[in-house]
Amino acid sequence: MKCFVTYPKSCHFPIENLPYGIFSTQNDKIHRIGVAIGNLILDLKQISHLFDGPHLKNHQHVFQEETLNSFMALEPSAWKEARAKIQSLLSADNPTLQDNAQLRERALVLQSDATMHLPAKIGDYTDFYSSLHHATNVGVMFRGKDNSLMPNWKHLPVGYHGRASSVVVSGTPITRPHGQTVPVDGAPPVFGSCKLMDFELEMAFFVGGPPTKLGEPIKIETAQNHIFGFVLMNDWSARDIQKWEYIPLGPFTAKNLGTTISPWVVTTLALEPFIVDNFPQDPTPLPYLVHKDKFNFDIQLQVDIIPQNSAISTTVCRSNYRYLYWTAKQQLVHHTVTGCNMNPGDLLASGTISGEASDSFGSLLELCWRGTKPLNMADGSQRKFLQDGDTVTMNAFCEGDNFTVGFGACAGTLLPCKNY
Amino acid sequence: MKCFVTYPKSCHFPIENLPYGIFSTQNDKIHRIGVAIGNLILDLKQISHLFDGPHLKNHQHVFQEETLNSFMALEPSAWKEARAKIQSLLSADNPTLQDNAQLRERALVLQSDATMHLPAKIGDYTDFYSSLHHATNVGVMFRGKDNSLMPNWKHLPVGYHGRASSVVVSGTPITRPHGQTVPVDGAPPVFGSCKLMDFELEMAFFVGGPPTKLGEPIKIETAQNHIFGFVLMNDWSARDIQKWEYIPLGPFTAKNLGTTISPWVVTTLALEPFIVDNFPQDPTPLPYLVHKDKFNFDIQLQVDIIPQNSAISTTVCRSNYRYLYWTAKQQLVHHTVTGCNMNPGDLLASGTISGEASDSFGSLLELCWRGTKPLNMADGSQRKFLQDGDTVTMNAFCEGDNFTVGFGACAGTLLPCKNY
Repeated sequence: MKCFVTYPKSCHFPIENLPYGIFSTQNDKIHRIGVAIGNLILDLKQISHLFDGPHLKNHQHVFQEETLNSFMALEPSAWKEARAKIQSLLSADNPTLQDNAQLRERALVLQSDATMHLPAKIGDYTDFYSSLHHATNVGVMFRGKDNSLMPNWKHLPVGYHGRASSVVVSGTPITRPHGQTVPVDGAPPVFGSCKLMDFELEMAFFVGGPPTKLGEPIKIETAQNHIFGFVLMNDWSARDIQKWEYIPLGPFTAKNLGTTISPWVVTTLALEPFIVDNFPQDPTPLPYLVHKDKFNFDIQLQVDIIPQNSAISTTVCRSNYRYLYWTAKQQLVHHTVTGCNMNPGDLLASGTISGEASDSFGSLLELCWRGTKPLNMADGSQRKFLQDGDTVTMNAFCEGDNFTVGFGACAGTLLPCKNY
Repeated sequence: MKCFVTYPKSCHFPIENLPYGIFSTQNDKIHRIGVAIGNLILDLKQISHLFDGPHLKNHQHVFQEETLNSFMALEPSAWKEARAKIQSLLSADNPTLQDNAQLRERALVLQSDATMHLPAKIGDYTDFYSSLHHATNVGVMFRGKDNSLMPNWKHLPVGYHGRASSVVVSGTPITRPHGQTVPVDGAPPVFGSCKLMDFELEMAFFVGGPPTKLGEPIKIETAQNHIFGFVLMNDWSARDIQKWEYIPLGPFTAKNLGTTISPWVVTTLALEPFIVDNFPQDPTPLPYLVHKDKFNFDIQLQVDIIPQNSAISTTVCRSNYRYLYWTAKQQLVHHTVTGCNMNPGDLLASGTISGEASDSFGSLLELCWRGTKPLNMADGSQRKFLQDGDTVTMNAFCEGDNFTVGFGACAGTLLPCKNY
């Protein structure tokens, strides 16, 4: 498919991708919806009148809003129509935008001139725990090999409700927190700065479709209609705080200090060429969770750390979305099995994505095996956990034969503790 | 204080109370802010122009909105001014409203003519676990007397993020859910309807004040400025589902099936006459959690169950807010200790409120001691857990010398399981 915007073959935002995001510019501070193409952004507010197909002509206002929620709230038929229209408008053989210099001037913005914002108003945020290798690694470290996986883990996608207010967009600094920890087992807790700050490599999907009603579960047959698209996520974790607080109700202040997502939402439609076999599940889950169609994706994941005042980045992890045991459809269906209502813009995260190989582990906790195996950084320093000033950058991309579908970076710098 | 609206001394909504809620009527479906007075509602939209004091004259629009969020977002000085103005307008010696027949006609609505809605758009909802007797009871049942309280429990207010979307207003029916349970210990899980539906008697407060920033904890000295007011809450719980799913990340689908709150928000200002000593804390918490001023309240709590097709209510629990070990200020401060940002309209719940006496336990799990001590109902039936058609009604009130401050009912009927 040829696009009139030019970009190299390695570009993460070709015409086959077309991820949605929210941006503003120096000249126009109003948040608006854009689509990444090459090194540009197509401003959908400027071309909303061109969405004249049967599923969108009465909903053009969704392209003039400050978040993606209203667009996400439409049916998948509308998402499909929008994608086809944008693809057509950007294609080399369509003169509508290409040959209209005035419109082109208004509607195409350099990514480097734009500030990105959260893609949606996130009503509720949920974090799953769906990587077998991650759950096993954590289990082995904290409970030993024989009790590594909890009895429920292979029967349901374990998850917990997270804090929506503290989800921030890539680039937002994260402050090393204060909190309660127990430095000496059995001794009373102390108050102070977190000593064991970590990242967690995750992906998350935005819920789409009309809001569902309380008491009406989403069934596995129609779950895909509610999965709008995916982002990268860094679920920053204060390990020493988490260890002390999490029994029996789960992680709380160790996580609500900040959760970073990438700004571009890559749609499920754009990921279709990268569908791969689901992770083998043994035992077979209960019927309400079973789907035979493939809903797993070959998305390569990478985590890099750059120390403060350094130009030298170290890749500390290479993983893949396909390592997830539970699919996004299973996560959504289980989330609503007791009747939980879902709203467009809700965010459901995968949990840390670790593969089998030790360099594919998605957190420093696992990579450095609880601090026992320090990582050698390219600048000569070592890491067991994050240091102040470290910038953690996650990237994700799918490699096709002739194009790459990328997610754009999910980055954040860890600032030192403030005075309490 | 004499009010021109007349009501009996036992009325829960005297001029000393003045709780805020959101209502609509048959004739005007627009949601709007009201204040309960006697058996009437004062429609603040109709009198917004009368809020002409220094803290409100530039914010009169907050009284014309469809939720309380914007009013909650103002400073406590504005809440105080609003209360004083409403009290003055309703007092027997103020002619402004009393002697203006047209305005009175427009601004005063019968509560029986109104439909109540959620008081605020709840951004995030958190549930604590702050009753010593409840935590101990549950611990004894599931882990034995020696390990009843987890080591962290007396050092920090244990809590977890809940699901905001499934918080509903009193009167909304709740459907018995499907889910995964393990009826025989050690056997594989089965899918089916929840067998052990329960209520949890809780109270919750709405966060107020301007939004706080990520990375900026709320300190104990100023925590009260962020506590707008309180509601009653029924944290419906599917015990058999909860037992199987909750390790290691906490309750999830066992709770997001629905959480009911009472429609009237009783302000912290109205509760001031009912302040009592804080619950004794031993050991003394870490300094960031210590406050010497009293922030505990003598609020009597009661739970009644009416079986389907019965007119006979049974009071199954009498408890009191004052039994909580951790204060609302401590909950809020701990919630934000690592930097979590708070928004007006966020809801923080207490956890089940159980006293020492066995008839003060705030859940059927405890009242019937895991099903071993069935409750005798007034209609001759028995309960170990809830039955289909049961209506659970919670009430709360503070008894003063000359007046009662009540919360209005928090009620919901349990509907039978639907086909999955």
